[in-house]
Amino acid sequence: MTSKIRILLLGVLIAVFSCNEKNADNNSSQDNNLGHPSLILTKQGVKEIRANLGSIPIFDETLALTQEEIDAEIEKGFDVPLPKDYSGGYTHETHKKNYVLMQKAGVLYQILNDEKYANFVKDMLFEYAKQYPTWPIHPKPRSYSRGKVFWQCLNDSNWLVYTSQAYDCIYDFLTEAERNTLETDLFRPFADYISKENPQFFNRVHNHSTWGNAAVGMIALAMDDDSLLQRALYGYKEAKIDPNLKDNDGGYINREGDMGFYANLEEPFSPDGYFTEGPYYQRYASYPFLIFAQALQNKKPELKVLQHKDGVLLKSVSALINLSDADGEFFLLNDAQKGMSYRNASLVSAVDIAYHFGGNNPELLSIAKKQGKVALDDAGLAVALGLKSGMEKPFNKKSIELSDGANGNQGAVGILRSEGLELVFKYTAHGLSHGHYDKLSFALFEDGDEVVQDYGMSRFVNIEQKGGGNYLKENTTWAKQTVAHNTLVQNETSQFQGKYDIGSKHHSNKYIFSVNDSVQVASAKEDNAYPGTKIQRTFVTIKDKGYDKPYVLDIMRVSSATSNQYDVPFYFLGHIMQTNFEYTKLNTPQILGKSHGYQHLYKEASALVNEGNVKLNWLLNNKFYSYTAVCSNNDEVIIGRIGSNDPEYNLRNEQTLILRKKNAKDALYVSTIESHGTYNPVTELALNAYSNIDEIKVVHNSKAYTAVSIKTNNGKTNVFILSNENSEKEAEHKLTINNKVYSWVGPYTFTENQ
Amino acid sequence: MTSKIRILLLGVLIAVFSCNEKNADNNSSQDNNLGHPSLILTKQGVKEIRANLGSIPIFDETLALTQEEIDAEIEKGFDVPLPKDYSGGYTHETHKKNYVLMQKAGVLYQILNDEKYANFVKDMLFEYAKQYPTWPIHPKPRSYSRGKVFWQCLNDSNWLVYTSQAYDCIYDFLTEAERNTLETDLFRPFADYISKENPQFFNRVHNHSTWGNAAVGMIALAMDDDSLLQRALYGYKEAKIDPNLKDNDGGYINREGDMGFYANLEEPFSPDGYFTEGPYYQRYASYPFLIFAQALQNKKPELKVLQHKDGVLLKSVSALINLSDADGEFFLLNDAQKGMSYRNASLVSAVDIAYHFGGNNPELLSIAKKQGKVALDDAGLAVALGLKSGMEKPFNKKSIELSDGANGNQGAVGILRSEGLELVFKYTAHGLSHGHYDKLSFALFEDGDEVVQDYGMSRFVNIEQKGGGNYLKENTTWAKQTVAHNTLVQNETSQFQGKYDIGSKHHSNKYIFSVNDSVQVASAKEDNAYPGTKIQRTFVTIKDKGYDKPYVLDIMRVSSATSNQYDVPFYFLGHIMQTNFEYTKLNTPQILGKSHGYQHLYKEASALVNEGNVKLNWLLNNKFYSYTAVCSNNDEVIIGRIGSNDPEYNLRNEQTLILRKKNAKDALYVSTIESHGTYNPVTELALNAYSNIDEIKVVHNSKAYTAVSIKTNNGKTNVFILSNENSEKEAEHKLTINNKVYSWVGPYTFTENQ
Repeated sequence: MTSKIRILLLGVLIAVFSCNEKNADNNSSQDNNLGHPSLILTKQGVKEIRANLGSIPIFDETLALTQEEIDAEIEKGFDVPLPKDYSGGYTHETHKKNYVLMQKAGVLYQILNDEKYANFVKDMLFEYAKQYPTWPIHPKPRSYSRGKVFWQCLNDSNWLVYTSQAYDCIYDFLTEAERNTLETDLFRPFADYISKENPQFFNRVHNHSTWGNAAVGMIALAMDDDSLLQRALYGYKEAKIDPNLKDNDGGYINREGDMGFYANLEEPFSPDGYFTEGPYYQRYASYPFLIFAQALQNKKPELKVLQHKDGVLLKSVSALINLSDADGEFFLLNDAQKGMSYRNASLVSAVDIAYHFGGNNPELLSIAKKQGKVALDDAGLAVALGLKSGMEKPFNKKSIELSDGANGNQGAVGILRSEGLELVFKYTAHGLSHGHYDKLSFALFEDGDEVVQDYGMSRFVNIEQKGGGNYLKENTTWAKQTVAHNTLVQNETSQFQGKYDIGSKHHSNKYIFSVNDSVQVASAKEDNAYPGTKIQRTFVTIKDKGYDKPYVLDIMRVSSATSNQYDVPFYFLGHIMQTNFEYTKLNTPQILGKSHGYQHLYKEASALVNEGNVKLNWLLNNKFYSYTAVCSNNDEVIIGRIGSNDPEYNLRNEQTLILRKKNAKDALYVSTIESHGTYNPVTELALNAYSNIDEIKVVHNSKAYTAVSIKTNNGKTNVFILSNENSEKEAEHKLTINNKVYSWVGPYTFTENQ
Repeated sequence: MTSKIRILLLGVLIAVFSCNEKNADNNSSQDNNLGHPSLILTKQGVKEIRANLGSIPIFDETLALTQEEIDAEIEKGFDVPLPKDYSGGYTHETHKKNYVLMQKAGVLYQILNDEKYANFVKDMLFEYAKQYPTWPIHPKPRSYSRGKVFWQCLNDSNWLVYTSQAYDCIYDFLTEAERNTLETDLFRPFADYISKENPQFFNRVHNHSTWGNAAVGMIALAMDDDSLLQRALYGYKEAKIDPNLKDNDGGYINREGDMGFYANLEEPFSPDGYFTEGPYYQRYASYPFLIFAQALQNKKPELKVLQHKDGVLLKSVSALINLSDADGEFFLLNDAQKGMSYRNASLVSAVDIAYHFGGNNPELLSIAKKQGKVALDDAGLAVALGLKSGMEKPFNKKSIELSDGANGNQGAVGILRSEGLELVFKYTAHGLSHGHYDKLSFALFEDGDEVVQDYGMSRFVNIEQKGGGNYLKENTTWAKQTVAHNTLVQNETSQFQGKYDIGSKHHSNKYIFSVNDSVQVASAKEDNAYPGTKIQRTFVTIKDKGYDKPYVLDIMRVSSATSNQYDVPFYFLGHIMQTNFEYTKLNTPQILGKSHGYQHLYKEASALVNEGNVKLNWLLNNKFYSYTAVCSNNDEVIIGRIGSNDPEYNLRNEQTLILRKKNAKDALYVSTIESHGTYNPVTELALNAYSNIDEIKVVHNSKAYTAVSIKTNNGKTNVFILSNENSEKEAEHKLTINNKVYSWVGPYTFTENQ
């Protein structure tokens, strides 16, 4: 209520105020690139914001909440403590809060023209200017690039990206002498520290460096320092770094090649806007990329940064939204914490910038609406005006393949969407230091809930109780290992031996991505995960008219020169209802293996199965699911649980089903996943509790073709045939199976009711 | 859309129709107790419903949905298959569906006056009349009282309760000859089968019999058969039953005493309306109790059934609503499946009846609104009219004690509500055959989510994959056992030795229930669970002004003549963040014990602790919780997990923390539970992640008094003193602790900041 009344009053006051100003300024020059503010707010933008206040609901609401927050903080007063803690600790959280407060107060000063906000920023900046020069390197030793305010330069860079905006906003409020003090005692030494003094941090192609580059670049723009801007854009060229140095996550610090903001823009983004580390880190990196690009666009439009690489930064925003589930939560590719979504504040800026500078795509308005707030700047105003005029359209997430690699030729992520189901198939490059060793793995979501999960990362971000909120050692020993994922493990060894040096040299390859039908296909190949072993995996979503929901067909062909043990884990979430095979539960769980993640798995039960199908029926979120897999004689099914060798309960103790084939050269894993029924705990009605699939069968498997028949319980048998070696769309194929001739054009065919 | 338009058209048509009819009937007699319908619909009620259609939104919507459903079913046609399956199977589910369809179609016939509905009921009834006489006893052998249509008489009774209503609705539509056929071939033999031929089912005081009584009574009212009605009300007196016979759940079939509907009304309900089996079964039993009462009220108002025992049936509805969490889901007392709520259809009738016949309590309207539908009868009309006139008030669930036992003197359930926290404390009688051996146990909810759980029952109702949807053997070996609950286990043996014969003879005793303050206290005593051992447990919710949320203090005093091992499990839900004690995780889990539920617990980790406090900090639903417990030297903390000796994964594999004291005669368990912080996975901010309680300490413990000090991290130390042997409100007490004199009146005192 208070907020609403405040918005109204504010609107009235500002409308009066801005009307007057509008008249006065009607004939003034439009050179909004001169003077301050000019980074995320421009002089012209501020005028327009003031003129519209009170009549742009989402902007007004965001502003009222921000004002409420900052007013309360001004009331409380601030603290600039001597740095000493890791994330989660007091000094860390306080400095983090400070830069956010300064950025917001700066914006409020511009929009509301109330000097109390400028004074708040000024006072805090001067406190930092007084203390910063006296601070030693941060006492916590864990980082490869320790900061001064925080335990790592990364967080120091965060500070500067935000504080630059605040400085830009109160620039004209300060005297020249005051600006000199701040620039000399605080900003220049700060920028130098994270660049010159930490080139192993600043000169990388990595999200850390993006933050460093943006930080130095933003303060350079605010101070109008062109030489510093060059450092931000092209790196600190005078640095010499040991090429074998690694960061905390095991990634190499420095490789030959370009550096600085442009290099960071060039390398990690594919032409489709996919960020090679995955969506969780793209979300994090988006902010410096886009906020700095916005500032450059405003202040140095001649650099055309948003047009760079065919507008990749703007494309990246749509790519990122496409990498989220029905609830807007990001898919878990590589290191990623569950629950992160496009509601994150950095995505608010990103979406607003993409809308404002990217041609006012009305689908982005619906995302902004779900975010429920806008950036308090020119871009946010554009979104608010768009929403006000009812331009919004639903953001229609479709099946999409997003290529990986700077040139788009290092594999891809394929997302098959069919009604409520979303299947995420990973056949990318490694993903830099945040990559997991899980080529050709997948995860399945329904209606925004994980059904077959990717573990994500082993980390509780900013929860100090868990290793200071940082990466836990189980991230390396478990989450990154292949067996933690829904993909092939050969001889209980992770892909690429779990070694970054090897994994980062390779990528999977796209094979088919065809999604214009009720049968959608994504197929990819991996030849390097296990030298001498070739793997091809194909996911198909099939919408059979006879059933309410589509189902997933999964075909993984493995061929090897040598005999191996193959494991394919299936991390279903939920409670086991029934299996069609008899398993023996161990009296007490045993540890499944010694290393490569196997040391973290308990074996709870197992079964030796015969040729035919194994079926697992389970219940999750009051939905019934079934997994049906083709088996050969003596295949072993292991029911396992995560959690051994986990002395501090860092891991989640969830289940898995592993299908194991021993002493096999070639292997063919074929399975289906169905969401087929529901349970209602209020009516206690179970509907369609059983699988609709009676039998799946490999009816042909040769070098050239693999064919699978699927017999459903409505008496139909459908056949899917895959061309294993020719994915050309125009190629003609002919294959005889059980005396029936199949002829088709293109890499696959699906024949109903044979 | 279709439904809405249909409602409108319907409204218009019926308004015209009923206006005419109203005029015609203006001077007709008001003897609505004569003729048909007269059970849940009355002739007068039908008139009023017709007159209001189209202008009573919740009724119109329910009607439209019902009509849509029944129209589709009439289109499809029905099946009356030869009975053969358990619940979840085809014949079971089909017969279940049939009776619901008949009941609804009957009502539609009355309200819409469209003969297609009457014909649908008639055709189905005649199909049953044709087949029923030919059916043998149901082939599935599991029940102590096998039905004919279903595997147990219970479900046959369900059928008759619903079908009686349908028969009443189409009574006048049938010819006398048709009625004779139905009554002779179907209804009378059906009623006889579940009563005369199954007195071990019909003559009990048990929810099964309630259904049986109501079934026979409803069809008696529909047929105007007074002798049959007497049987329903007072039991089948000619029966002889072996007094040692037990039902499937281990309860005795027959005890000396009253029987029939009145006996079932008398015995299981306390004067507060608490049903001794617990809310899950009260929900189930509510329907026959209330629907039969409604029919009696309509047809035999002279019996004053709703006034019986000071209006206990109407009180029971409010009691049941009070036994639900913030989302309306029932607390898990005794056998109970999670997720059952007052949205259940049987509660729709119950709430409507309680509103209509119980003085139009406006708080019930808000529950009806949450249910989103009404009964399509006179009671539902009253609710719809109440909602339409905006009479609704929020149902204000407060802290409440609901006594158990026919006379209210067999203990109680105490519910402490403080802001978002709801603590459910059980000190009841056994709860008949659905009772669990868990005197003085508790569960804690926050904002509708379980935080410290009661396991509930080991059963997946109507999920055929899991034991036919029936009780699993783990319900007996695990869910009923004491160690599955948050209460005291002595010498690894369940309370009352886990024997029904013993447990059902005893109850706990109320001691204090005082809830009119920021400090609320519920205290109770149990002297029989372990002969020779006396237990008193006291829960206190404390709203300390210094903190956002209240916290829970738990004091359990145990005194015994002999030395024992005591275990108190704590079934927290969520992920362990941190403990303040060092535990050793076992390499692989071990089974904790041999019997009494211990065979189902894995021991995962343990610690020997010293005098002081142990603290467990965990994360659930993005909230941080802490448990802090007072320890003595050599107390053992065991971290366990449910799931051993569970060959079919029937159990949920959740964690527990057990505080074990060995070789102790007397023991004092004191602990606090706090909900103190939040985590936001989108902002990645952890707020107040740590416990606010620095130390809890027993500062006095004698036969007469127990005193606990609580030191919080804002520098305060509060003291709670409990009088152990005198709960009189006027009693004066004086106690010196550490040279400070405490004087107070009443059974406890809470002194702040000492």
